[in-house]
Amino acid sequence: MTAAWEPAYARRAGRMRASEIRELLKLLEKPGVTSFAGGIPDPALFPIERVKAAYAAVLSDAAAANGALQYSTSEGYAPLREWIAQQMQAQGVPAQPGNILITSGSQQALEFLGKLFLDAGDTALVAAPTYLGALQAFAAYEPRYDTVRPGQGNETPEVLRARASANGGSAKFIYLVPDFANPTGETLTLAARQQALGLATDLDIPIIEDAAYAALRFEGEEQPSLQALSVADGGGLEASRVIYCGTFSKTLTPGLRVGWVCASEAIIRRLVLIKQACDLNSSLINQIIMHRLAEDDFAGQVTRARSHYRRRRDAMLAALAEQALPGVTWTKPEGGLFVWVTLPEHLDGAALLQRAIAEADVAFVPGGAFFTDGSGRNTMRLSYSLASDEQIRAGIAKLGGIIRPLLSGTKKLAE
Amino acid sequence: MTAAWEPAYARRAGRMRASEIRELLKLLEKPGVTSFAGGIPDPALFPIERVKAAYAAVLSDAAAANGALQYSTSEGYAPLREWIAQQMQAQGVPAQPGNILITSGSQQALEFLGKLFLDAGDTALVAAPTYLGALQAFAAYEPRYDTVRPGQGNETPEVLRARASANGGSAKFIYLVPDFANPTGETLTLAARQQALGLATDLDIPIIEDAAYAALRFEGEEQPSLQALSVADGGGLEASRVIYCGTFSKTLTPGLRVGWVCASEAIIRRLVLIKQACDLNSSLINQIIMHRLAEDDFAGQVTRARSHYRRRRDAMLAALAEQALPGVTWTKPEGGLFVWVTLPEHLDGAALLQRAIAEADVAFVPGGAFFTDGSGRNTMRLSYSLASDEQIRAGIAKLGGIIRPLLSGTKKLAE
Repeated sequence: MTAAWEPAYARRAGRMRASEIRELLKLLEKPGVTSFAGGIPDPALFPIERVKAAYAAVLSDAAAANGALQYSTSEGYAPLREWIAQQMQAQGVPAQPGNILITSGSQQALEFLGKLFLDAGDTALVAAPTYLGALQAFAAYEPRYDTVRPGQGNETPEVLRARASANGGSAKFIYLVPDFANPTGETLTLAARQQALGLATDLDIPIIEDAAYAALRFEGEEQPSLQALSVADGGGLEASRVIYCGTFSKTLTPGLRVGWVCASEAIIRRLVLIKQACDLNSSLINQIIMHRLAEDDFAGQVTRARSHYRRRRDAMLAALAEQALPGVTWTKPEGGLFVWVTLPEHLDGAALLQRAIAEADVAFVPGGAFFTDGSGRNTMRLSYSLASDEQIRAGIAKLGGIIRPLLSGTKKLAE
Repeated sequence: MTAAWEPAYARRAGRMRASEIRELLKLLEKPGVTSFAGGIPDPALFPIERVKAAYAAVLSDAAAANGALQYSTSEGYAPLREWIAQQMQAQGVPAQPGNILITSGSQQALEFLGKLFLDAGDTALVAAPTYLGALQAFAAYEPRYDTVRPGQGNETPEVLRARASANGGSAKFIYLVPDFANPTGETLTLAARQQALGLATDLDIPIIEDAAYAALRFEGEEQPSLQALSVADGGGLEASRVIYCGTFSKTLTPGLRVGWVCASEAIIRRLVLIKQACDLNSSLINQIIMHRLAEDDFAGQVTRARSHYRRRRDAMLAALAEQALPGVTWTKPEGGLFVWVTLPEHLDGAALLQRAIAEADVAFVPGGAFFTDGSGRNTMRLSYSLASDEQIRAGIAKLGGIIRPLLSGTKKLAE
């Protein structure tokens, strides 16, 4: 006998389903699989000795330890907020600690922002494809999604507004990953950034800037953040319509669960109330450790990560080029963790994954999951973050071996 | 110039306000105040040396450290889920690891359950007074509150159902803190527990059992948890209508942010999706540390905490008795951290707090904040967790000195 609570769940529960990716990734438990699937950092970069020394130092001082293991403020650890504010200042955003909220990774920031802005039926404007975790975070608040394509021609504000209104709500924000986006690895040009800000201004809505990968630039010209551009437009941070979500997960470690939001004080005050209601506060000891790690050697860590992932990216781009698959294209990321591959239209990434795992012990994420409209089935996301150069070369070769015979015909893989 | 986003916020934002308590507690920053306000554990009990040794051990093994600092599963660390399942088994609940979700403190569990069950306009049935943090967690989902009084005569199911329906929703769950409740310190008798389960059965809704203080019993007979009673009624855990929220915050430390939910697998699967969308996972290294602490010496830690808080409670009850204030009554908790004081009707706890801080350097929490209907203004919550025996004696004496002159007349304090 099992209690059947389904009918008692809130309506939003119907929107919160296990992702296709999650189901597919269960296949990865097969040993010996070369995975280009996860978008997770390489633990070889984790500063383990520094982490260990930092915990030991904090826990060796009784008063510090007592504080670090106690409940603490929802806003976050003051010295860490101060450190982050200074980093933001160095990037052209005049942030003070009151502009910073510490979150449990930037995923929590996205969830809070969905909670703050979205009523059921409202519209969230997102890129296509976009970060699946953002869609999952927003889903609880029952939005509709519409698409923006900064730099590639957006719909007019009138059209976007009319479609949102036809759904019974309004467009509440634009969500973008401007640097080395998950899943495409692409970066918005300065003109595209200005265009995104212009659209937000026309719609009079905020932009949520997800900067998860922004620190990991290997080459090319550093672009100002949307928040920095918005601040430069005048009015300072308090008048900015950009809400910036940062994280230490891709530079130092995701294991301490420390991210942040940088925004106007009015928005931070709202988010602090949400944080308090959601989990009281992020682990203080972890925040203290993260502050020590950041103070110690953030720049050095970023330099090591950039050089590490650059080599991996180079290996993957070379391996893809070597396969010379006709009709197959891919992005050339200037940073981050991902390459995005577009196959000919008749191929299906999900069906390809099943064959790739079964026949070649290679995994990746089919791209369809990153679209809100069911398109993109002929795409795939390849992460180069975890595989060695040799695994990348061999894995891409095996993948090429499966794809090549499929390119001549129009036979669907799934058939 | 400041961007005015207020009109863009979701409707729920209007429900998420800074609590009166939070405002009042700012007064505590005054140095030298004896605080009976916070409901937080005494750091003197934190097992600092064990925490330090546990971090050192995990971080000294490179493979373990790499894993501990990486992203991990939303469900939580498997050995910790196993340990908790065994604890639940020892309390009469046949839990398996699949029945356990690790959360960032039990506050996060409450928020997740609000998200899972509450549509706007639904009714949450709560005690009066009840834990303010639960009200804050649920508030985002725009419920109405109605009151249950297990053991003191509930409304009939028909009345509760009709009132929920009149509000356009339905009663979705009963939320209770059965052991040494925040804020009253009171414990439900076995008969009251059966009555609560009977009401939930009549309404065919779940009960959220908040067991935050359950381990801290000093004296009296151990009561079965609502979940254990429900399991004993037949059908096992999968058929149980009780969702149990536990935490290590009051026994080991709140600083690692580790709590859990124990429920049917169907509910846990739903909560895992919510966890994934909200913050991906709780810090794995903290979960590993908590598992080590729990395995090492959970029973010893609980024994020390019980004896420590028992002495503090004795000091507070003795101090209150010594004051012999006519018309003032208080609870005699058998465990936990709180004594609940009821003043004569004409006295106002919030006004009393302002005088207590200004004139006597003593703080507490006025009880009105714990009611959903504006009642209880003549009550106050006293926590004995942080003050020494001598501070308790002296602080209560000073408080008595302020209250005594007010007891003869009917003059309102606030006037």
